[in-house]
Amino acid sequence: MVFDKFHEECGIAGVFGDKDAANLVYLALYALQHRGQEGAGIACSDRRSLRVEKGLGLVADIFKRSILERLSGDIAIGHNRYSTAGENHLKNTQPIVADINLGSVALVHNGNIVNADVLRNELVSDGAIFTSTSDSEIIIHLMAKSNEKNIIDAISKSVQRLKGAFSLIFMTENMMIGLRDPFGFRPLILGRIRSSHVLVSETCALDLIDGEFIREIEPGEMIIITDEGIVSYYPFEKVEIHPCIFEFIYFARPDSRIFNRDVYEIRKAFGRKLAEESPVDADIVIPVPDSGIVATLGYSEYSGIPYEMGLIRNHYVGRTFIEPAQSIRHFGVKLKLNPVKSVIAGKRIVVVDDSIVRGTTSRKIVKMLKEAGAKEVHMRISSPPTKFPCFYGIDTPTRSELIASTHTIEEIRKYITADSLAYLSLEGMLDCVENSSFCHACFSGAYPTLHKDGNGYNPKSEV
Amino acid sequence: MVFDKFHEECGIAGVFGDKDAANLVYLALYALQHRGQEGAGIACSDRRSLRVEKGLGLVADIFKRSILERLSGDIAIGHNRYSTAGENHLKNTQPIVADINLGSVALVHNGNIVNADVLRNELVSDGAIFTSTSDSEIIIHLMAKSNEKNIIDAISKSVQRLKGAFSLIFMTENMMIGLRDPFGFRPLILGRIRSSHVLVSETCALDLIDGEFIREIEPGEMIIITDEGIVSYYPFEKVEIHPCIFEFIYFARPDSRIFNRDVYEIRKAFGRKLAEESPVDADIVIPVPDSGIVATLGYSEYSGIPYEMGLIRNHYVGRTFIEPAQSIRHFGVKLKLNPVKSVIAGKRIVVVDDSIVRGTTSRKIVKMLKEAGAKEVHMRISSPPTKFPCFYGIDTPTRSELIASTHTIEEIRKYITADSLAYLSLEGMLDCVENSSFCHACFSGAYPTLHKDGNGYNPKSEV
Amino acid sequence: MVFDKFHEECGIAGVFGDKDAANLVYLALYALQHRGQEGAGIACSDRRSLRVEKGLGLVADIFKRSILERLSGDIAIGHNRYSTAGENHLKNTQPIVADINLGSVALVHNGNIVNADVLRNELVSDGAIFTSTSDSEIIIHLMAKSNEKNIIDAISKSVQRLKGAFSLIFMTENMMIGLRDPFGFRPLILGRIRSSHVLVSETCALDLIDGEFIREIEPGEMIIITDEGIVSYYPFEKVEIHPCIFEFIYFARPDSRIFNRDVYEIRKAFGRKLAEESPVDADIVIPVPDSGIVATLGYSEYSGIPYEMGLIRNHYVGRTFIEPAQSIRHFGVKLKLNPVKSVIAGKRIVVVDDSIVRGTTSRKIVKMLKEAGAKEVHMRISSPPTKFPCFYGIDTPTRSELIASTHTIEEIRKYITADSLAYLSLEGMLDCVENSSFCHACFSGAYPTLHKDGNGYNPKSEV
Amino acid sequence: MVFDKFHEECGIAGVFGDKDAANLVYLALYALQHRGQEGAGIACSDRRSLRVEKGLGLVADIFKRSILERLSGDIAIGHNRYSTAGENHLKNTQPIVADINLGSVALVHNGNIVNADVLRNELVSDGAIFTSTSDSEIIIHLMAKSNEKNIIDAISKSVQRLKGAFSLIFMTENMMIGLRDPFGFRPLILGRIRSSHVLVSETCALDLIDGEFIREIEPGEMIIITDEGIVSYYPFEKVEIHPCIFEFIYFARPDSRIFNRDVYEIRKAFGRKLAEESPVDADIVIPVPDSGIVATLGYSEYSGIPYEMGLIRNHYVGRTFIEPAQSIRHFGVKLKLNPVKSVIAGKRIVVVDDSIVRGTTSRKIVKMLKEAGAKEVHMRISSPPTKFPCFYGIDTPTRSELIASTHTIEEIRKYITADSLAYLSLEGMLDCVENSSFCHACFSGAYPTLHKDGNGYNPKSEV
Ligand SMILES: Nc1ncnc2c1ncn2[C@@H]1O[C@H](COP(=O)(O)OP(=O)(O)O)[C@@H](O)[C@H]1O
Ligand SMILES: Nc1ncnc2c1ncn2[C@@H]1O[C@H](COP(=O)(O)OP(=O)(O)O)[C@@H](O)[C@H]1O
Ligand SMILES: Nc1ncnc2c1ncn2[C@@H]1O[C@H](COP(=O)(O)OP(=O)(O)O)[C@@H](O)[C@H]1O
Ligand SMILES: Nc1ncnc2c1ncn2[C@@H]1O[C@H](COP(=O)(O)OP(=O)(O)O)[C@@H](O)[C@H]1O
Ligand code: SF4
Ligand code: SF4
Ligand code: SF4
Ligand code: SF4
Ligand SMILES: [Mg+2]
Ligand SMILES: [Mg+2]
Ligand SMILES: [Mg+2]
Ligand SMILES: [Mg+2]
Repeated sequence: MVFDKFHEECGIAGVFGDKDAANLVYLALYALQHRGQEGAGIACSDRRSLRVEKGLGLVADIFKRSILERLSGDIAIGHNRYSTAGENHLKNTQPIVADINLGSVALVHNGNIVNADVLRNELVSDGAIFTSTSDSEIIIHLMAKSNEKNIIDAISKSVQRLKGAFSLIFMTENMMIGLRDPFGFRPLILGRIRSSHVLVSETCALDLIDGEFIREIEPGEMIIITDEGIVSYYPFEKVEIHPCIFEFIYFARPDSRIFNRDVYEIRKAFGRKLAEESPVDADIVIPVPDSGIVATLGYSEYSGIPYEMGLIRNHYVGRTFIEPAQSIRHFGVKLKLNPVKSVIAGKRIVVVDDSIVRGTTSRKIVKMLKEAGAKEVHMRISSPPTKFPCFYGIDTPTRSELIASTHTIEEIRKYITADSLAYLSLEGMLDCVENSSFCHACFSGAYPTLHKDGNGYNPKSEV
Repeated sequence: MVFDKFHEECGIAGVFGDKDAANLVYLALYALQHRGQEGAGIACSDRRSLRVEKGLGLVADIFKRSILERLSGDIAIGHNRYSTAGENHLKNTQPIVADINLGSVALVHNGNIVNADVLRNELVSDGAIFTSTSDSEIIIHLMAKSNEKNIIDAISKSVQRLKGAFSLIFMTENMMIGLRDPFGFRPLILGRIRSSHVLVSETCALDLIDGEFIREIEPGEMIIITDEGIVSYYPFEKVEIHPCIFEFIYFARPDSRIFNRDVYEIRKAFGRKLAEESPVDADIVIPVPDSGIVATLGYSEYSGIPYEMGLIRNHYVGRTFIEPAQSIRHFGVKLKLNPVKSVIAGKRIVVVDDSIVRGTTSRKIVKMLKEAGAKEVHMRISSPPTKFPCFYGIDTPTRSELIASTHTIEEIRKYITADSLAYLSLEGMLDCVENSSFCHACFSGAYPTLHKDGNGYNPKSEV
Repeated sequence: MVFDKFHEECGIAGVFGDKDAANLVYLALYALQHRGQEGAGIACSDRRSLRVEKGLGLVADIFKRSILERLSGDIAIGHNRYSTAGENHLKNTQPIVADINLGSVALVHNGNIVNADVLRNELVSDGAIFTSTSDSEIIIHLMAKSNEKNIIDAISKSVQRLKGAFSLIFMTENMMIGLRDPFGFRPLILGRIRSSHVLVSETCALDLIDGEFIREIEPGEMIIITDEGIVSYYPFEKVEIHPCIFEFIYFARPDSRIFNRDVYEIRKAFGRKLAEESPVDADIVIPVPDSGIVATLGYSEYSGIPYEMGLIRNHYVGRTFIEPAQSIRHFGVKLKLNPVKSVIAGKRIVVVDDSIVRGTTSRKIVKMLKEAGAKEVHMRISSPPTKFPCFYGIDTPTRSELIASTHTIEEIRKYITADSLAYLSLEGMLDCVENSSFCHACFSGAYPTLHKDGNGYNPKSEV
Repeated sequence: MVFDKFHEECGIAGVFGDKDAANLVYLALYALQHRGQEGAGIACSDRRSLRVEKGLGLVADIFKRSILERLSGDIAIGHNRYSTAGENHLKNTQPIVADINLGSVALVHNGNIVNADVLRNELVSDGAIFTSTSDSEIIIHLMAKSNEKNIIDAISKSVQRLKGAFSLIFMTENMMIGLRDPFGFRPLILGRIRSSHVLVSETCALDLIDGEFIREIEPGEMIIITDEGIVSYYPFEKVEIHPCIFEFIYFARPDSRIFNRDVYEIRKAFGRKLAEESPVDADIVIPVPDSGIVATLGYSEYSGIPYEMGLIRNHYVGRTFIEPAQSIRHFGVKLKLNPVKSVIAGKRIVVVDDSIVRGTTSRKIVKMLKEAGAKEVHMRISSPPTKFPCFYGIDTPTRSELIASTHTIEEIRKYITADSLAYLSLEGMLDCVENSSFCHACFSGAYPTLHKDGNGYNPKSEV
């Protein structure tokens, strides 16, 4: 299927102090599967050495019993990976595990280091060798070069060099360390299972493994978990935080709570606000399932227009298909979504989706609804137009491919053949989260890291 | 996961007269994947001979490009299979392909032959050999023994010997034949793609391949598709028809139209009727997704209680998981469903599901909702209590395992720990389909075939 | 690699009365792997029912521990299969297992039924259905139609209808039955492991599983093995026996004893006789390894010419290879054989192989030896020219592809570019086995079955 | 199977300047498969970047067409790997590919660095990170730290730090570099295919790909292959060379020429010398195939005792097998070797093998021959007793496990139950190669590197 979504680049998890650590991390990664579906890995410490197992594909397909059994020990960290096209290789799969002067260390990373090229060049000139292209290897090199006497100081010193988005979990033979960048772009949650501690990207992972929510790791916080307990450090200067608002719009699961808010509630508020800002006279409102469902419920609630499941999402989505020789209209979208004719036919319909990237999918959906007999199709988007790429760990097309970057809303409406089209306003969106310090650069171009030092905007990505 | 649902035993499809026949059947089977997930097969005719490819697992995993390329020809039939526990073997996978006195013939079957044992014993005594335990092999044997001079007469004569449920598609080198038993238990739809003809279990399969709906094959009808066109026969005595009402309740996809009704509309009507019959004072109504969604929308509409997605269904359901050593509460259900705490906490909740089989899943769901903070949990089921096994192509537990067969509704309520429990009444259900001739034996014990000749009820299944 | 050998079509094995039966059959099949490398299967009886597992590929790759564990029971039979090009399918893989009027029966077959088409047509007209194209299914049908009251009579009656080559092992829930056709084309050996009985194609399979040789099943003998012991029947009229002499020349392993002779000794006698009939003045004699080794030792012994390993056979032969874009001379042969230049260069060489089929391989070998510096290359073949196809269970090319059928020896010599070429004479060969009743039809055209009833020669195969 | 052999640790190959480079390297690795069977990898340069593909298992199983097609470019290097028990992981599989200050570089290594631990510790203290435990990563780090301005100087400087055995092939985007340690422990051959250059461990790899032998890389030589041609450097001080004599005894293929000698001729000379030193009155002499074959031919030639193939080596050796519950005598050896009873029975036999490691295999062979009826069994070994471990790239057991290290020859004879036992003498062996400067440390304890600086003997391996 053509890539027509922003993509989260990772989900991460760690367990400290449970003899079933690798198994729990595996289940946490399953609950975080939506954050990365191309590969996964788990590293484990048995207090004597570290072992790692990785693979390409879905968590449940990679980790068979025999592989999990090899991962014995009571500390484990893991990673789900989204890979950019073409490089579906084990090479960049995490966790990275390395031996350095301070011992063995494993690392998983959710986010993106904006100054990776600068750091990498500097390290290479200084004699470092790189066997992958992952940001994580840079972090390990910074630690190895830090001249610090212990892991904690080495990490503190190294992460101060990083610009960009990074939620990290480190593991040594006896320690697990969680850390969020000072802007707090990506979430990281602390939980507990009996006497063991857990770190996960979203609370839905805690739910699956019966973990209890303790609190979020704070932006800029570094938390060290050992047999002695938990200690916090703040290695960074304090700055205004900028959590990624797109996590609420699309990436996170609706049953998660992140950035101290319930995704479901925020997503519903977006829908209500969208109804308030852009009402329409219609018979029914339907979601583009599943990501559009919760905002649609909000839209229906505020507008009073009845909610229906006018598009059915296939349960077996996600595999590659062999298209027949004769062309099938809207094939890519049809493999995923099918209209319910009896619901659609003869109706004036509002259809709600979370975002439009290239516009090709929306166009197919609108056409499919019209072919199913819709009298009018009004597209409503529960976020503002996405005009700018993200440099903070989300895989986005270049600016020229973002339809909202090069077209007016009216032009987009024409292209997708809708009777009307409206986006949630930036102000409306920020209202819903009651905080304007969230990152919203992909809508506004206001890159938090660019503001600070003029270095955040990566021109190479624009080619 | 423990088996706690009735299971459809098959989905079938056929295409006549398209050089891409096997590829179209493959896509149709993908759209019918919910009717059988353990194996699939496609047979193809290139007008000189028949070829078949089968495998275990999901359609998209079995049929890679190289395999589809081997299936050249312009006629193809296919089958999705549900297998009863333990016998996950290729042996019984369909299509069955055999050489008989009238040439080569392939066959797929959706349903269950009630007098299979009798026929099989008779055939074996008469010198037949059986290499599988499938009903289809019986049908082929009856054809081979029929002494008829052509395939059509051989089929007509053979199917007259069958009692029970059977939607069949036959293929020879130059012909495709569709057939439904006189009671019409299982659906079978006729469609068209350009100049080729298509047979499928549900209309959702037509939608995916851009097929146009023509009409349903009628109960007792046999339709012969050749290069000359389409001809109909009625090899059976006319009887009152008994389509399976459970197709509406659960098996069919909500975006399908079968038995000349829209599944979505019927399912929603069930929900409305349920609200009418068993109202409750509550804050929200939530579905057990996905099968409970549409009835819940009906319940919400009639009752005015706001609809919420209080349980989130994991997108990666369906794989086997390695449970951790330490036990996780409600593990089986949690892999599939997770409550949204902000929606649930402090609320009086109506939760709507399509049916209760053993009760174990419902119990876990109620407990999970209470642990998420629900003040009250009222379970509403959009069908009557399932008290009897099905002998018409649905895999059901024995009577003793059906909780409604051995317990009163109050006892079930207690077991599942709900604050209240109500089922849709038999009359209410039949009202919604405006026809009391539908089969409802699993609720009422009124087996259509038993009525006719006292032979429908298979005591062996009760062990 | 191009097919340039006659190919044995099967190896078979059975064990009665050992709780490890399937495991022993698996090892026996491994020892018989040279008789069929495309697929294998094992059926097992636990005294209540039969179970079968099959696969494509080598025995050691198909039967993993988990699969062998499913084959519990103390009776097992198995089969290695050679498949003719294109039809690499599980469908025809043996054992065939079927339910008939006399119960469940499994069957493995080594050989070829000459009148298979006649029998199949007759059975099909009589209402039989065929789901494979294997001869074994014919035999099961004959049994099912036999009207006999017990398995033994059913087998006796059925096999009397067969013409051609058949070494068979049947298994029921409580019995194992071995049988050889009256001509005795293919071997079948009876052995013992402690208190259990074993049937195998060659004695090398007994050696691997520590089995003791008892005796050969005689041509025309049917041996019934039950808990009560062993009984013999002779269901056929007595005829002159015709064991396949090619088993000695090439098919059987040199460490086996079959037809009451040691393969090694016969093969060496062929070599000595070849030296006697066709001497040559040369510096060294080398084999085409491994099949040519033993005859070469005989040639060296008689002639006094020193034996050397002038060609080294690669240990990893048997996998498919990706040829490079630029052509490599003699690529197919080079993947298997490499000349030792220091042995070859400047020498007059006799090179001994077992047979020549198309001549393409021999031509490459001779050229390769010349390029390695050989002064003269004299090819000696330890069997007569193969001019006729085999209809008794060996896969041979058609007559027009057999170089000796269409060319004189001098023409062949020119084609393969040898300095001289000689074959063993028919008389010389028969001298070595001290019996002229052996089948030698592929050399002489004297088909044993043709002699008897004019029905043995299958003109269809000549197309 | 129990490990009862010394094992070569690698085979390496490289091609410069052929658009089919990866395919040729793949075939070269197939020809070198006997030097490492646990994993393989190929790296390729398309003059813009390096790409690598690796896998576990045999070359022909890892490199399917689709994988080879990804390796486009005209420079490629590859590696076959032997892995020590337990660590069957991709992590240490070569080629290693890394980005350093001088660009991208790939490396394959045959041998063992004696001072690896020292160098690794030094590098780690200096801030290096290690993601594998392979020696190659050390070499890359040394290059990265070398402060040299070009790859050639970086390599020269780095390899001067290495002690031990190393035949290396480096690749950059535009260059291929071959290098042998100054002692010349492991072979490395230079060849040509049309206008491209080739480096391989043994000449048999040249033969398969139609390559022409040019010459050996000399001990201590570094050869740089670019589009401009070939240049040689000698970065090391000149020392007396010590090629590994065990390559002749066992590791190399008999059809190879290495160290400017033909393996076949040397191996045959060992056999003749053994016959001269340790004659015996016997009826036949047989090899332990295949490694014992050529020496046996020498023994037979000198002694006049007739050569026979009394043991047959199974063609399908090398897979894991499921042993039956009941024990089978000599199971491990029987899966590989089977005696020919007609050859053995009643005879006085000399059996020749290349070496004895633990003695367990020899014991099983002698017993098997006696059970096959041998009157006397005289074991002759075509090398001296192996008493010391190797530190130069051969996987050997510790001293305590080497039977010759802890037992007298008479004790060994008793243990293996032979009627007599004799080894080739050290002097006799060295006579055959006409040079006493070969390494023979595993026989004599005279470690070349120990002689030089007292650092060669690695006490850790002795645990
Ligand atoms: N069961 C669910 N109900 C509603 N939203 C879900 C559910 N599961 C996941 N999601 C959300 O939907 C997103 C992806 O779903 P979907 O719309 O089906 O695919 P797409 O990525 O093509 O938009 C996830 O990132 C998550 O936020
Ligand atoms: N996207 C969908 N929305 C609503 N119902 C669906 C959808 N897809 C399938 N169904 C229906 O739901 C049934 C199965 O879904 P689900 O409830 O998730 O699983 P379970 O079989 O465990 O109840 C299908 O048989 C079908 O009727
Ligand atoms: N170890 C062996 N030594 C000698 N002959 C063997 C050995 N193993 C098998 N054989 C014989 O060699 C035949 C096949 O070997 P080979 O010549 O290598 O292959 P090809 O089938 O291409 O001729 C077998 O059918 C068997 O008779
Ligand atoms: N065809 C051959 N004939 C003789 N020797 C061979 C042949 N192929 C490989 N070799 C040599 O035999 C060695 C391994 O063969 P073998 O004795 O069969 O196994 P093992 O490693 O158990 O001794 C190789 O390392 C090589 O030197
Ligand atoms: S640019 Fe957009 S997607 Fe990226 S972090 Fe900011 S809000 Fe999130
Ligand atoms: S018994 Fe129930 S499931 Fe079976 S056909 Fe009748 S209504 Fe359908
Ligand atoms: S024709 Fe040849 S191969 Fe066939 S059985 Fe007779 S001797 Fe054997
Ligand atoms: S110690 Fe032995 S095996 Fe090692 S290099 Fe020296 S001779 Fe070769
Ligand atoms: Mg979506
Ligand atoms: Mg459900
Ligand atoms: Mg051969
Ligand atoms: Mg050996």
